[in-house]
Amino acid sequence: MKFRVTHQDPHSSARAGVLELPHGTVETPVFMPVGTQASVKSLSNNELEALGAQIILGNTFHLYLRPGVDVLDYFRGIHGFMGWNRPVLTDSGGFQVFSLSKLNKVTEEGVAFKSPVDGSAHFFSPESAIDIQRSIGADIMMCFDECTEYPAAYDRAAFSVGLTSRWARRCRDRWLEGDTEKQALFGIVQGSVYESLRRESAEALQELDFPGYAIGGVSVGESKEEMQAATGWATAFLPADKPRYLMGVGAPEDLLAAIEKGVDMFDCVMPTRNARHGNLFTRYGRINIKNARFAKDGLPVDPDCGCPACRNHSRAYLHHLFRVGELLSQRLNTLHNLYFMIQLAIRARRALCSGTYTGFKTAFLQDYHQK
Amino acid sequence: MKFRVTHQDPHSSARAGVLELPHGTVETPVFMPVGTQASVKSLSNNELEALGAQIILGNTFHLYLRPGVDVLDYFRGIHGFMGWNRPVLTDSGGFQVFSLSKLNKVTEEGVAFKSPVDGSAHFFSPESAIDIQRSIGADIMMCFDECTEYPAAYDRAAFSVGLTSRWARRCRDRWLEGDTEKQALFGIVQGSVYESLRRESAEALQELDFPGYAIGGVSVGESKEEMQAATGWATAFLPADKPRYLMGVGAPEDLLAAIEKGVDMFDCVMPTRNARHGNLFTRYGRINIKNARFAKDGLPVDPDCGCPACRNHSRAYLHHLFRVGELLSQRLNTLHNLYFMIQLAIRARRALCSGTYTGFKTAFLQDYHQK
Repeated sequence: MKFRVTHQDPHSSARAGVLELPHGTVETPVFMPVGTQASVKSLSNNELEALGAQIILGNTFHLYLRPGVDVLDYFRGIHGFMGWNRPVLTDSGGFQVFSLSKLNKVTEEGVAFKSPVDGSAHFFSPESAIDIQRSIGADIMMCFDECTEYPAAYDRAAFSVGLTSRWARRCRDRWLEGDTEKQALFGIVQGSVYESLRRESAEALQELDFPGYAIGGVSVGESKEEMQAATGWATAFLPADKPRYLMGVGAPEDLLAAIEKGVDMFDCVMPTRNARHGNLFTRYGRINIKNARFAKDGLPVDPDCGCPACRNHSRAYLHHLFRVGELLSQRLNTLHNLYFMIQLAIRARRALCSGTYTGFKTAFLQDYHQK
Repeated sequence: MKFRVTHQDPHSSARAGVLELPHGTVETPVFMPVGTQASVKSLSNNELEALGAQIILGNTFHLYLRPGVDVLDYFRGIHGFMGWNRPVLTDSGGFQVFSLSKLNKVTEEGVAFKSPVDGSAHFFSPESAIDIQRSIGADIMMCFDECTEYPAAYDRAAFSVGLTSRWARRCRDRWLEGDTEKQALFGIVQGSVYESLRRESAEALQELDFPGYAIGGVSVGESKEEMQAATGWATAFLPADKPRYLMGVGAPEDLLAAIEKGVDMFDCVMPTRNARHGNLFTRYGRINIKNARFAKDGLPVDPDCGCPACRNHSRAYLHHLFRVGELLSQRLNTLHNLYFMIQLAIRARRALCSGTYTGFKTAFLQDYHQK
């Protein structure tokens, strides 16, 4: 993996960069659609490419349970299995063993948990999380971390940082035993809402010299202000020449704020989850397509949008599809919302490359919050 | 509407033809995907066109309830509303007022029924069924009929034929008041499993001189033998120079048998419904993709198939998507099954045009029933 910052914003920490990965080049800032179970909800690979998706996410926890490591090995990883040829990033399963498995027990060694699918017993260690991600074969793997819940007292958050750091070392050691060129490994900064802990975490990981760093333990219930502060504390203590990935964030305004703090990569289920609820992004803020006022509205969801839903269909048709529960509703809504987020990152990048990021951000937010 | 038979099979009543409609030309025999609520389950219009869909179905009962006539009028019909530019056929709602509305009351005047959506009271008459179909704006409209349930005693079936004939006259009269070139109207033959009644119904409708004729009251629970007999009795008494449409049929073997009896047009929800249950057509019969033996199967569903699911994905991936309940599962399965049926009709047509229908049918069934 190679990363270089090509443009630095003179007024903030925002930057544009290029990330070279085994399955292709990713231009940053970038929004990465989430394909938890080797599928981005309802979309085909062709559609994802047409939306401008440069890299997608897979989920180690889910893929380990189904289809399982033996199937992934048989198809030599997720690329062959799902037919996606561009880069993939996998999270480590650290977040999901806590959020999705009700029965879990954390020890220094790792986490014992019960499968939410069939109740069977499993164990993830830093080493096994790397091994599973080797089978998945993503271009970027993540360290197995303990994601700190919110709110968390200082001592609790400090313990979490310590454990995450010790696990990060074990992940790195396992990673170094294999082909480090084929798959990169990112460390994950924890530390909750405490500046000293975010710093401690960032510095401890930096000693391990990862190809890139992620900021975890955000978007877990804290306020937007707390999230921005945590992001800023982490990026301030991370090396400038390595890519930074803010996990699970977020709304358009969060994306732009984090870019300004020097974040390069984003993922979030919000565009797909909102799509399911008829909640659609537009230049002038969010609308809910189920609202009766759209029943005879012949305009596209967002007249400025170039996505397949907006190019081909009216608000009235999308309103109807949502109301009658047609599958096409979720598909068109997902296409629209993902296009919006992917293009937002692309537009931010373009502004960074031409030195106009502040103006771009101000203009975007002015429109977006107009209503 | 113009229809001409271009090739007549020397060994059976099978024929190939060309149907010219306001929104385009349809080559027969043809399989028409069902888009009940102005959407063919999960598919985009581009995908439907790529599958070879020449004409799709809309459903008067559903479209009347949602989005409603005022919305359809506002968008000048279903084509503008859903963005589909090729021909559309609408059924009359006759079948659904009985099958989907538990509370319904039939009189000579029409049918009073309660909406399955919100329980509100509605009334369909032959005249209103035509008026609603005018608002939908399909290239082909259907007469409002009383679809005879199965089993039905002779007297009950005879009453149904009589009522359907009287309603057909009223439908025709209403149709003649409007633009008969813009939308054609088909009569529907009833008569259950009774040859004399099928004949009586076909002859009564023929006196009204419709542009085309449908065979209704089939695929309602009768045996395949009864269905084929009913189809043969109806086609025998219908004019050879008008298109014939067998409603709600069916399986691949039913399609080929009906073509041999002189049927030109087909629709069926089976390909889409089967897709939802993981039941997929292949050259060598049906398979269920949820079967564990497909977990590591790297072949396409049908190696001979040119559909997007088979061109891009393995059985193992489709098995996984079905097992984890991903939306893409239903979409890929639907693409595959619809392609199979659409292409079956296209291949039958090609055989008819080259005078090899019997051989084609024999070879297809030999493969299809091999297992």
